[in-house]
Amino acid sequence: MKTVAIIGVGHTKFGPLPDKGLLDLMSEASLEAIEDSNTNDKDFNSVYVGAMSPSAFNNLSGIASALVDKLSLLPAAADHIKNGPASGGSAVKVGFQAIASGMSDLVLVVGGEKMTHITTPGYVTSNVATLTHPEAERSHGISLPSFAGMLTRTYLKKYDAELDWISDIAIKNHKNGALNPIAHFQRTIEDSMKSAIQKGKGNWDNVYAFLNDDKTNPIIADPLRLFHICPISDGAAALVLCNADKAKEFCDTPIIISGVGQATDTQIVYEREDITTLKALRLASSQAYKMAKKTPDDIDVAELHDAFEILEAVQSEDIGFFKKGEGAKAAHEGLTEIGGKIPINPSGGLKARGHPLGATGVAQVVELVWQLRGEAGKRQVTGAETGITCNFGGFGNNIISILVERL
Amino acid sequence: MKTVAIIGVGHTKFGPLPDKGLLDLMSEASLEAIEDSNTNDKDFNSVYVGAMSPSAFNNLSGIASALVDKLSLLPAAADHIKNGPASGGSAVKVGFQAIASGMSDLVLVVGGEKMTHITTPGYVTSNVATLTHPEAERSHGISLPSFAGMLTRTYLKKYDAELDWISDIAIKNHKNGALNPIAHFQRTIEDSMKSAIQKGKGNWDNVYAFLNDDKTNPIIADPLRLFHICPISDGAAALVLCNADKAKEFCDTPIIISGVGQATDTQIVYEREDITTLKALRLASSQAYKMAKKTPDDIDVAELHDAFEILEAVQSEDIGFFKKGEGAKAAHEGLTEIGGKIPINPSGGLKARGHPLGATGVAQVVELVWQLRGEAGKRQVTGAETGITCNFGGFGNNIISILVERL
Repeated sequence: MKTVAIIGVGHTKFGPLPDKGLLDLMSEASLEAIEDSNTNDKDFNSVYVGAMSPSAFNNLSGIASALVDKLSLLPAAADHIKNGPASGGSAVKVGFQAIASGMSDLVLVVGGEKMTHITTPGYVTSNVATLTHPEAERSHGISLPSFAGMLTRTYLKKYDAELDWISDIAIKNHKNGALNPIAHFQRTIEDSMKSAIQKGKGNWDNVYAFLNDDKTNPIIADPLRLFHICPISDGAAALVLCNADKAKEFCDTPIIISGVGQATDTQIVYEREDITTLKALRLASSQAYKMAKKTPDDIDVAELHDAFEILEAVQSEDIGFFKKGEGAKAAHEGLTEIGGKIPINPSGGLKARGHPLGATGVAQVVELVWQLRGEAGKRQVTGAETGITCNFGGFGNNIISILVERL
Repeated sequence: MKTVAIIGVGHTKFGPLPDKGLLDLMSEASLEAIEDSNTNDKDFNSVYVGAMSPSAFNNLSGIASALVDKLSLLPAAADHIKNGPASGGSAVKVGFQAIASGMSDLVLVVGGEKMTHITTPGYVTSNVATLTHPEAERSHGISLPSFAGMLTRTYLKKYDAELDWISDIAIKNHKNGALNPIAHFQRTIEDSMKSAIQKGKGNWDNVYAFLNDDKTNPIIADPLRLFHICPISDGAAALVLCNADKAKEFCDTPIIISGVGQATDTQIVYEREDITTLKALRLASSQAYKMAKKTPDDIDVAELHDAFEILEAVQSEDIGFFKKGEGAKAAHEGLTEIGGKIPINPSGGLKARGHPLGATGVAQVVELVWQLRGEAGKRQVTGAETGITCNFGGFGNNIISILVERL
């Protein structure tokens, strides 16, 4: 198998971007990645586009074909890879295989989504809810936030944890996002509280009091409140991949994808032995560690899929950083902060960087590349050489883990 | 690069299948392919699902995750591959790369679509029309049938060809479909004519008179009539792929995928130098021939993408069987019949086997496997050892060509 290197990265601002369409965003991220890769004159063999629902959200069903044309990358092969909110991670995996097999020498991977223009109430959440089981779940009104609420309640009870510890994850991720110029939200929750106090909306002793107030932080899926849940964002991210043997021709600091894992679990959440254990992540990350000959102890930085803050706690356990039931406490104790034992989501994660569905899995890898190159600015994890991701398609039923390291 | 073998194939009946949902059809084809592969006790590493619009047609956005669960193939990795009506071909390519890279040992590739339940007039065609360019084409009312009508008129004029020769392609494909038990239409156009005469609907001297009658064969996209255009069908097809080194363990007659090509062309049809030349097919098939070290003369049987019968004529030229402008005449002269110089679409093609969008690219490969194994029954091409496909995503802007041969 050929070794696969990342030689270029691109990332648009995430957030509500009313002036740009999906193809604009994908083009912007792609051109940035191509420029970053110094491959300007080279031919791309193939382009893989990760997006969850461009057909439903943007009325575009041939998104990959349209993108290669817009980028003047014709006649590069172009395919659209879908795996719910893990569409980006799947596109990275498929692009990896194109290089690893020797079928392609130079591959562009792009992930993106454009959703904030949709004004029909419930349209986006209903679309995302089509990831659940049609008869066993969806017909009973189940949605992904409701699963997250249920998981939170079960986790807190089973492991004697506190909801404030889950809030700590949101507080950390907003703090990190405030250091990330392309994040959707660039201010801390403390900033939001102070601003609310100044505006006379109330008075709180501390940020937990603010976060437990129904007026400022309404319950969305009991016990989860607004600040425990990621926003709806627009944005795109891109990677240029090539055979590692040739990477040094283009790039001083190529990063290699040394581990790739993906696994599925029962689509019906009820059928799992334990809702608080992500079996698919355990398998996917084990595959990635094994392939890269690494263990969780070797990891310097991680980007996890905190669409709901409880997920970061659970994922930090099942990816091997903490014992079962100790992830939320570890976050509470600061172990996952930048500078902590294992920094998680220095980008701000889905909570603060934002979550343009198909973009996320690619954006996670872009952040790790920045971290491993030492280009992460104020949110730099000192000396980071190895990183791992968790990207979530559905509610834990299809998980991808990508392990990257310096060449 | 590891050599990739096809060790199992499955194929549902194509046509209106009101009693079965999309997941039922995909499961049926998959289980048939798995049984055919004799790998019953083996673990599948990954599953690639080709489907164009399961979200819009079936309200299922996590189709690949749902399928691995339904098939009890957990924890196999699962991804959904989209490339318009070439989604099946793209899924085959991505599955091929999974084995070729050494990332997977055993892969299931499934293509399928379920559309005939949709009763909203124009819903399916409007969805397919989202493959065209939003501003330059779609907003002016362009649809894929209108492009096909324009291509037909240009071709007939430029190459001094006759519409009856295009009808000959439909006549041949219906004749082949009549020999294919899983085809959507299993009767010849002559049968339809005789039946219409018996019912007192008219009287025609020959099949061309019948096909040029507005009552029995109305114009859809001038000059193309109903019988020149493929139907809307339900159905699924599946392949089991493995490393060729291990193929003989499971299967007496493994077929190898020795060539894979894919290329894109301008999304805006107007921007092409010549509408009658499919540049993307020329490139895609060249890649496949080169990889397999074959030429068009080596091919014994082909499955082309005759969504409109003009396309079979043009594709038979650009894939290298006939000189430019001679494809329709070759069909008229019987060179593409079973037993002719180069049999095309012995399955009946999209016209008669039917065209459940995402299923087609996989079904084309299944038909070639049957032909190369000598299992094609009454439509067997004698001694076939090498075959090639053309699968079309959009109107010629994203084309995949798969070359298969006996190991």
